[in-house]
Amino acid sequence: MLSSTLKRRVEWGDCDPAGIVFNPQFFRWFDHGTTMLYEAAGWPKQEMLARFNAAGCPLVDTRAIFKAPCRYGDDVEITTEIAEIKDRSFDIRHSLTKDGKLCVEGFETRVWTIKDPERGLKSAPIPAELVARFRGSDAGTLPVRGYCL
Amino acid sequence: MLSSTLKRRVEWGDCDPAGIVFNPQFFRWFDHGTTMLYEAAGWPKQEMLARFNAAGCPLVDTRAIFKAPCRYGDDVEITTEIAEIKDRSFDIRHSLTKDGKLCVEGFETRVWTIKDPERGLKSAPIPAELVARFRGSDAGTLPVRGYCL
Amino acid sequence: MLSSTLKRRVEWGDCDPAGIVFNPQFFRWFDHGTTMLYEAAGWPKQEMLARFNAAGCPLVDTRAIFKAPCRYGDDVEITTEIAEIKDRSFDIRHSLTKDGKLCVEGFETRVWTIKDPERGLKSAPIPAELVARFRGSDAGTLPVRGYCL
Amino acid sequence: MLSSTLKRRVEWGDCDPAGIVFNPQFFRWFDHGTTMLYEAAGWPKQEMLARFNAAGCPLVDTRAIFKAPCRYGDDVEITTEIAEIKDRSFDIRHSLTKDGKLCVEGFETRVWTIKDPERGLKSAPIPAELVARFRGSDAGTLPVRGYCL
Repeated sequence: MLSSTLKRRVEWGDCDPAGIVFNPQFFRWFDHGTTMLYEAAGWPKQEMLARFNAAGCPLVDTRAIFKAPCRYGDDVEITTEIAEIKDRSFDIRHSLTKDGKLCVEGFETRVWTIKDPERGLKSAPIPAELVARFRGSDAGTLPVRGYCL
Repeated sequence: MLSSTLKRRVEWGDCDPAGIVFNPQFFRWFDHGTTMLYEAAGWPKQEMLARFNAAGCPLVDTRAIFKAPCRYGDDVEITTEIAEIKDRSFDIRHSLTKDGKLCVEGFETRVWTIKDPERGLKSAPIPAELVARFRGSDAGTLPVRGYCL
Repeated sequence: MLSSTLKRRVEWGDCDPAGIVFNPQFFRWFDHGTTMLYEAAGWPKQEMLARFNAAGCPLVDTRAIFKAPCRYGDDVEITTEIAEIKDRSFDIRHSLTKDGKLCVEGFETRVWTIKDPERGLKSAPIPAELVARFRGSDAGTLPVRGYCL
Repeated sequence: MLSSTLKRRVEWGDCDPAGIVFNPQFFRWFDHGTTMLYEAAGWPKQEMLARFNAAGCPLVDTRAIFKAPCRYGDDVEITTEIAEIKDRSFDIRHSLTKDGKLCVEGFETRVWTIKDPERGLKSAPIPAELVARFRGSDAGTLPVRGYCL
């Protein structure tokens, strides 16, 4: 399955008075990890949506499990990967590590949606071309840009 | 079980380019809901920790399920309640509603910890007095301050 | 001149590892103060823009002067007022106090803009009706809603 | 004078419903720019404070001037430099550019402080060794780590 990895430096403003990363910040990083995964699949998010005439990939469920704290100045790595592809939705898994040690695991379920004149959005089958990219069958040939944030 | 409710106005800066609340923002609100629940139990967070000689209640697991979007200017209510009390941890449930309609459900598991000279923190049994407050058996007599944020 | 006041509780997640409010958070609060000032003038922001066929009031200059720190749990008041009305822009002043003591002063300059087919946005004279509201000549009759956040 | 530069990708969650970076986010980036400037001077922030027995460099004044908007997906550069060194305070200037075009200018004044048993903090002269580093006389020999965030 397709995956991509970001490196981040924990910033002062990411941390709370206990000196550790404030939990919502992890969800900010995970959201960006998902955006970068779309780029790894081949397209910036808006291009991907335009190419497939989609409306977005709204999050319907997210979870994080905290195993070890992160602190100001830590250099962390976040690996984001497609965990499962269903007909109209897909699951993403994020693994945040520090010096190779797993600190936080994140999970997302997102729905593939198209515009609907009546309801605004409705779910739709994920296009086959995108499924193939998510499965990583093309990944070796993709110019995965080495974004570090 | 003990519960408390906050009212919030969705602010411009809480929302993303899709015009809806950016998902990490819900976790900020839920975190504050938990803090206010401690106050509803009887003490500001730091007083509570000091009274029981505790080190904190670190989050070990959190999840949100998104049922309907919230937008800039929406007035929402967040009800935070103790869902389950275990020996050394407790579960919290947050329900965010708009005009009475459930938009987001949140879940947290937090561990009761005390200071440990070797490991920094270690889990410990939740004090009986706090359990009684969390069960809400005393809630009728508590001066639950009507915080609006 | 028109003014409005918000009360806020400093939240855990607003603060940094030094235990004080992280400075960008003040700008979040000031931005919301300005939004609420528009409401005090008579309209939610989007209604105001629609009524006058405007494109927005982009910020061109902002500043904050820090006199005393704010900490987790502090109850603060933010008073936002029109400081000066020019032809195509206006200045706003925010005063954040704790127990009546001034902690932070904020300043904003915003430009009144309308849509321009070529450049996206262009500045325009502030409509007379809005100027009158900003001057507060109508303020006594406005149903200024008592938002607490 | 000493300077350092960060590259950042504008993230989805940095932007507001108008599709542009929400102004407080720039102050988050500027704060991190200052932290990285301390590293460019020779020490991570906490090591620098410890070395000189200082209490911190609290921000007393900050300002931003907005010349052009930044949007989701933009790759920006933030150059942070010492602008002026006074006896007990120093001024910092941040320049955020996109494709070489200046979008936002930021300014900070920070005070050098040491611990004071009575008042908590008090200002103090900036140590000569740090002044020399800020002047950049040593900068050529410093292993300025190429942090990209």
